[in-house]
Amino acid sequence: MSPSRLDFQLEAQATGSRARAATFRTLHSTVRTPLFMPVGTQATVKAQLPETLHESGSQILLANTYHLLLRPGPEVFKRMGGIHQFMQWPGSVLTDSGGYQIFSLPHSRSMTEAGAVFQSYVDGQRILLSPELSIQTQMAIGSDIMMVLDQCIPSTADEAAARAALQVTQRWAVRSLAAREDSPQSMFAIVQGALYPHLRRESAEGLMQLPFDGFAIGGLAVGEEKAEREDTCEMTACLLPQDRPRYLMGVGTPLDVLEAVHRGVDMFDCIIPTQVAKRGSLFTSRGIVQLRRSVYKFSEERLDPDCTCPVCAKYTRAYLHHLTKTQEPLGWQLMGQHNIHFYHQLMREIRQSILEDRFLKLYHEKRQILQVEDVDHPITTVKPPVISPDHAQRMGDYELELRAGEAARIFHIGTGQTVNTDVTAAAWTEDAHLATHLRLPAGESAEESMPLIVWDIGLGAGAAAIAAILTYEMEADKGPVRPMHIVSLTNDLSPLRLALSHKRHFPYLRHGAADTLLHRNAWTSRYKTGLTWTLLQGPLDKTIPQAPSPPEATFHQVLPGMEIPIGTPER
Amino acid sequence: MSPSRLDFQLEAQATGSRARAATFRTLHSTVRTPLFMPVGTQATVKAQLPETLHESGSQILLANTYHLLLRPGPEVFKRMGGIHQFMQWPGSVLTDSGGYQIFSLPHSRSMTEAGAVFQSYVDGQRILLSPELSIQTQMAIGSDIMMVLDQCIPSTADEAAARAALQVTQRWAVRSLAAREDSPQSMFAIVQGALYPHLRRESAEGLMQLPFDGFAIGGLAVGEEKAEREDTCEMTACLLPQDRPRYLMGVGTPLDVLEAVHRGVDMFDCIIPTQVAKRGSLFTSRGIVQLRRSVYKFSEERLDPDCTCPVCAKYTRAYLHHLTKTQEPLGWQLMGQHNIHFYHQLMREIRQSILEDRFLKLYHEKRQILQVEDVDHPITTVKPPVISPDHAQRMGDYELELRAGEAARIFHIGTGQTVNTDVTAAAWTEDAHLATHLRLPAGESAEESMPLIVWDIGLGAGAAAIAAILTYEMEADKGPVRPMHIVSLTNDLSPLRLALSHKRHFPYLRHGAADTLLHRNAWTSRYKTGLTWTLLQGPLDKTIPQAPSPPEATFHQVLPGMEIPIGTPER
Repeated sequence: MSPSRLDFQLEAQATGSRARAATFRTLHSTVRTPLFMPVGTQATVKAQLPETLHESGSQILLANTYHLLLRPGPEVFKRMGGIHQFMQWPGSVLTDSGGYQIFSLPHSRSMTEAGAVFQSYVDGQRILLSPELSIQTQMAIGSDIMMVLDQCIPSTADEAAARAALQVTQRWAVRSLAAREDSPQSMFAIVQGALYPHLRRESAEGLMQLPFDGFAIGGLAVGEEKAEREDTCEMTACLLPQDRPRYLMGVGTPLDVLEAVHRGVDMFDCIIPTQVAKRGSLFTSRGIVQLRRSVYKFSEERLDPDCTCPVCAKYTRAYLHHLTKTQEPLGWQLMGQHNIHFYHQLMREIRQSILEDRFLKLYHEKRQILQVEDVDHPITTVKPPVISPDHAQRMGDYELELRAGEAARIFHIGTGQTVNTDVTAAAWTEDAHLATHLRLPAGESAEESMPLIVWDIGLGAGAAAIAAILTYEMEADKGPVRPMHIVSLTNDLSPLRLALSHKRHFPYLRHGAADTLLHRNAWTSRYKTGLTWTLLQGPLDKTIPQAPSPPEATFHQVLPGMEIPIGTPER
Repeated sequence: MSPSRLDFQLEAQATGSRARAATFRTLHSTVRTPLFMPVGTQATVKAQLPETLHESGSQILLANTYHLLLRPGPEVFKRMGGIHQFMQWPGSVLTDSGGYQIFSLPHSRSMTEAGAVFQSYVDGQRILLSPELSIQTQMAIGSDIMMVLDQCIPSTADEAAARAALQVTQRWAVRSLAAREDSPQSMFAIVQGALYPHLRRESAEGLMQLPFDGFAIGGLAVGEEKAEREDTCEMTACLLPQDRPRYLMGVGTPLDVLEAVHRGVDMFDCIIPTQVAKRGSLFTSRGIVQLRRSVYKFSEERLDPDCTCPVCAKYTRAYLHHLTKTQEPLGWQLMGQHNIHFYHQLMREIRQSILEDRFLKLYHEKRQILQVEDVDHPITTVKPPVISPDHAQRMGDYELELRAGEAARIFHIGTGQTVNTDVTAAAWTEDAHLATHLRLPAGESAEESMPLIVWDIGLGAGAAAIAAILTYEMEADKGPVRPMHIVSLTNDLSPLRLALSHKRHFPYLRHGAADTLLHRNAWTSRYKTGLTWTLLQGPLDKTIPQAPSPPEATFHQVLPGMEIPIGTPER
């Protein structure tokens, strides 16, 4: 194999594990592995200053070629001297290829051998993202490590689709290398092959014949089970050369990262540390702390007494809890800063343990701690769910539970709270009988009558809204009724999506309104005039002001992560 | 008069101006006037770290009692040792009384002599905000300076209402002083009286008989003209004692602040520096720079070469432009930091010029610079509007222009861009004839047909949407049509509100749909079945995903401050 541009030096290999420690050198810095790369999608890590990223030990930032191609565009990077100069970042930068984003777009793209055509969200222009355009853009951005354009498919794709995708990826890898010309930037290939071991092998072997500076494991963390991901990760890592960095794209939680290091991976990126910080989920040396919980309202403790980050040195849990509840950007900044620091500290500990050949011990210790939640204030309602592995299904923070002889249940993984999927229990009986609201005022026709506005706060799995629809349909069969406009407000569509993908367990969803609602954000009955259902997605303080009002009936289903604020004027 | 708790020392009085420089001492720090107080509504200044606030020269932060009463609540402050400890702020804090917020609430409050009853947006509880509760809350918060609860009314209120409000304010001032008991915190009274000189005098004289540590000028910047505000400010400041600080609440732009210093005011607060930073409006030594304009896309210049703030030392205009366009929180942080620094720098220059008795010269120089916009890249489309003072009307960033013999015009103040108010010009002729879209597919009844979804991007003054409604009504008169759902998306209701408050100049608004839309975010025709109009307010990247889709017809009216992004997945 050709020499790596990165001068990759393997320093240690753990006993009883595939974990390894190494050093490599980019155009901008010396990098020590294993390492975690914070994600700076648009040439900025969410709410983080470059100097605090640097101080916390960030070595490489990941930037998204897809976003930067559209805005500010390659010309800006060319004229401003590249991304390091542009965002004032002294460390290294890795750019992805744009493939993941393009193939995640639900609409407005078409795929050929040439590349993927998509429509710009900035100016509506149609753009062909070819391997050449991706590399040219990454060259303009001036990253230290470029990724080839790959064809991402769901990890659960069938074999024919998976083989076709890896073959396209192989041909695009050749074109990507050619497009680099004389640039000194490094380039990584991406191994595809879904969950098929022989396809992973085929992909890896093909790519290893080309002079890449590193190899990524792509197409994971997109729908498969944790065990499947870990198996595929380990099997693929074993196929890759010893003298090149291995990068597991888009992964993951601290526990996921620990598991993958154990399986031989060196590099990671994920938006989790900044994303979960925004809702007050903090990683600490004693496990995960959910700072939005009211048990922290009066807590004078530091977030993590064992943490050396500036946030833990200065602020109480009570103040961070307050910033979370008020959704203040200072909270995103401080808590993101802590979480990034936590990842880097974990990677430093892992690296040190590999160098001192005590990784396996650390692995077993950390594995226990990293999955603990709120150890000082355990959530008492959690019941460990009994799931038959054949039917285990997750979506977002929700899981489907199937037990013989019992009704199917959807519950929140963190708290165990059950989502209502019973149309009769969801019915509007408490709320002064929806049917009476629907009656026409004396002397008015249906056409003249003001529509009845119904708020469904916390859509959940749609049972309450469908109950309202069924009530309307029943009443309309009896005679003229007022028009009705149901507005569902939610910050999380996962429970409904999960239920819809298992309709046979949730027969009320055969109605069809919910499918249309998810596709179009709105549904209008084609059979009963005057019946409309719309969806507003987001935190309630953003969606409530958008909702038709005033509601004459309201249904609440408070699920984890929901709050019920209404904005008031500031001075 | 009793001695001030603040040990107020007048240091200098400018020649030819009422501007003055002074020093006073709070429980936490020595304060030099004139000064500007950044607003930290919820015990945090939007996206700002306490240390950068301190470094930029912030002396006092303003916190909002109304918000802090509801969340985190006074008990948290009591147990956490007050707001300074809670938010780690070493300087001084001034708390307002909550009056402004309560009286700004459109609904859900009722006013008696006892106080104002309102409903909590946190938990729905009904709360009586009395002068006593306001002061007790401010004592729990532990601010250095407390404000009495006052009764705010629009500055344009009639004389009877204005007199009643100032009399209540006077009685509440007495109760507020009594409620302070033995607290060492200072307390300011608030002079009311709308725009009536004799009422301002009555209010000031009444309050000056009580042992307050300072006096605020309230009830301005709430609807009156600039000249009216300045006259009332000057007249009121003249009534106030020389040996107490004077505070003009909620004001204003740097120019407003300069004008008020000239008229004898010492203290200011305003959300402007952080609020306008969020949309890329920056104050510089050469005037205002609108960084969201594309002329800055490639600008390698510093934001303000004469500024000493860390943001100007480090970042280019091109990067800040990019952060603005992408609405990244780092942009809010950096640009807010610069704007706050600019205010403090201006106040320091003003103070120095007063101490050296050259304020009047500085005043005339600054007055010119502070109103200049984008001097390096002037906006060429701006026409200085000719407005008869009797009919001048503004709302938000929009102004109504009435000229004899011409149609009334609404335009954007910053750019001069005219808002469409012509229903015929707005009509959907370009967009493939709305009427043909409304035709029923062969063999379908109106009840069975999928509704036609129409997007009205940039509601403006509603002309396009009303044009669509009129088209529907016309077509429905001819025979059965498909249902139609118009969705207006906008980030600014000002142009429509302005037009609605001058309906006689915009006869298409007599239709009534627009009034209902503004009140309920939705309108459904009572006379033609199947016709709905809904409103989604916010930046387009937030509202487009909420909108019923796909649209078969779209109307665009791009007004200043609008962007057309559609979110795409991040890694």
